Amino acid sequence: MKSMDSLLIRAAFKLPVERTPIWIMRQAGRYLPEYLAVREKAGSFLDLCMNPDLAAEVSIQPLDLMEVDAVIMFSDILTPLIGMGVDLDFNPGPDIKNPVQSVRDIEKLLIPDPSESTAYVGKILRLIRKAVAGRAPVIGFAGAPFTLACYLLENSNLKPFTKLTTLFFDDPDTAHLLMRKLTRMTIDYLNYQIENGAQMVQIFDTWAGLFNPADFETHIFPYVSEIISSLDKKGEVPVVYYINGSNHLLDSMSRTGADVIGLDWKTDIGEAQRLIGERVSLQGNLNPNILFCRPEVISRKAEEIIRSYHGETGHIFNLGHGIDKSVDPQHLLHLVRTVKQLTTRNG
Amino acid sequence: MKSMDSLLIRAAFKLPVERTPIWIMRQAGRYLPEYLAVREKAGSFLDLCMNPDLAAEVSIQPLDLMEVDAVIMFSDILTPLIGMGVDLDFNPGPDIKNPVQSVRDIEKLLIPDPSESTAYVGKILRLIRKAVAGRAPVIGFAGAPFTLACYLLENSNLKPFTKLTTLFFDDPDTAHLLMRKLTRMTIDYLNYQIENGAQMVQIFDTWAGLFNPADFETHIFPYVSEIISSLDKKGEVPVVYYINGSNHLLDSMSRTGADVIGLDWKTDIGEAQRLIGERVSLQGNLNPNILFCRPEVISRKAEEIIRSYHGETGHIFNLGHGIDKSVDPQHLLHLVRTVKQLTTRNG
Repeated sequence: MKSMDSLLIRAAFKLPVERTPIWIMRQAGRYLPEYLAVREKAGSFLDLCMNPDLAAEVSIQPLDLMEVDAVIMFSDILTPLIGMGVDLDFNPGPDIKNPVQSVRDIEKLLIPDPSESTAYVGKILRLIRKAVAGRAPVIGFAGAPFTLACYLLENSNLKPFTKLTTLFFDDPDTAHLLMRKLTRMTIDYLNYQIENGAQMVQIFDTWAGLFNPADFETHIFPYVSEIISSLDKKGEVPVVYYINGSNHLLDSMSRTGADVIGLDWKTDIGEAQRLIGERVSLQGNLNPNILFCRPEVISRKAEEIIRSYHGETGHIFNLGHGIDKSVDPQHLLHLVRTVKQLTTRNG
Repeated sequence: MKSMDSLLIRAAFKLPVERTPIWIMRQAGRYLPEYLAVREKAGSFLDLCMNPDLAAEVSIQPLDLMEVDAVIMFSDILTPLIGMGVDLDFNPGPDIKNPVQSVRDIEKLLIPDPSESTAYVGKILRLIRKAVAGRAPVIGFAGAPFTLACYLLENSNLKPFTKLTTLFFDDPDTAHLLMRKLTRMTIDYLNYQIENGAQMVQIFDTWAGLFNPADFETHIFPYVSEIISSLDKKGEVPVVYYINGSNHLLDSMSRTGADVIGLDWKTDIGEAQRLIGERVSLQGNLNPNILFCRPEVISRKAEEIIRSYHGETGHIFNLGHGIDKSVDPQHLLHLVRTVKQLTTRNG
């Protein structure tokens, strides 16, 4: 199957689709007993990320178990930092033993060759592509520079973002140095994923919603735009840009060059479509907590989103944030089937 | 001094002001060594809340120390729940020993007489009014029903808001029962504060930003509107309605009947003014983390907000969220003086 044959890629480029595609952020994850069994076998979370066979196995699980329309590679946004010289562990949250504390620390960060430092990611993608054999498109991803900078500076105790704030506002030149390096790394890393089979890529900028529109434009936008314009196969491999808590940034996000904007669950998708729907496709945006509710409620809330979005393409159904580990997998399966049923065009 | 003589009350009602008033959410708090000394003397956090003399003392501290334009009574949004039969403690975060787990638990919640269950709040307000002697207006406050419900259901482990979500969407009738009781309690509580000297009241709905606009309209808006329309001295005692993470809800918020909308720091205040500035005054909205930065940066970021807001009244300067306990008080004092200087009209 060429990737253009898939609903996901066509919806991302606003080409005609028979129905709305659906995939779920963190669909390969802890809510699935089948994932937990493989995770147990792998050892630590990082061991699983770096074990291509097992990582590919958990990536593919939701394709059959949850009937989703795409496979996203199992990994973590922070793993490519290891190749930059970052001493990263997970206990269970991310734990960086050598957080960035000075200009010197930033200068020491390496720009790795992703085929060396993240060869396991290339292998995971090739294994997934082979195993999936065209049944569904394969999604790669990376953290955006700002969100990576949050962890590099604050480690896992992000709030109140003291170091991040003082770096960006008291010393913007040094912040720029860090963002430049992370941007360079991310471009190479995403191009490596595309080269190894990623058919769509998502850039996760989870924390970028912290900044107001003016600060976003100054300190975040240029780097994200540069990444997107530097990706290989632009126009063939769509790019999704996601921020959690992004309602105030939608206009800026839609001008980054991304093909798709990933919405959180707070924004009304119809409102977002009126604002930026001419420029981009939209991904989202069910409140992830709705999956704790009764199946009838899940159906009704999915339908509200489907009705709020107008037009027959340009929408990729997803949650507005990652699926919670306590969700009953049967509830997710119900959502997937409901979205497919509600959006299938007759004739 | 009549309250209408104060900058704060006039700005809230869009009456002419000589300059923009400023106060700070959590201005009576842990960043001040003088607060910590009194807190030490009081015993626990709850002991301080319930000790009228000491609570009044810490309330007034920032008036002289930080030169702010208003005094907000020292208290916590959860303390009025005690009179409803809730077993509340702070360790140091809120800890509810008997969270709401059933319809029965909701039915058991009492609607207290605030002059009995929160007599200490009446005393605090009267003591503040007496001590301040007209030098500044006095602000009362309450938590909004939805935000109180979050704590009553989830206790301090709010995320992922499982109980809250299933109550509101699986069982809206029971949610309504809970919201009705909290609304009733809050009306009485705020009217008691107004009766005892509060010259402006703020309704804190910290968590309401969790819901999308449609769910906000259904499950939150009616109760907030009812509270506001049931307050005594409407048109004399202005009402501020604050939500953290509210950019997607600004239009709804501006239709609650509130005189002032408290903005978080993510929304551009000029954009908010274009959207809802005809209906309401605006409070905010400096990123609270900017107070960690150098004084020059604090000045520049304050100026950006002042320039973004157009017109000579209708703006109350504040942070977009409470001040962090690690902020240097001298930085806050610098902000207050800067805002006063930048907004003073000539002539």
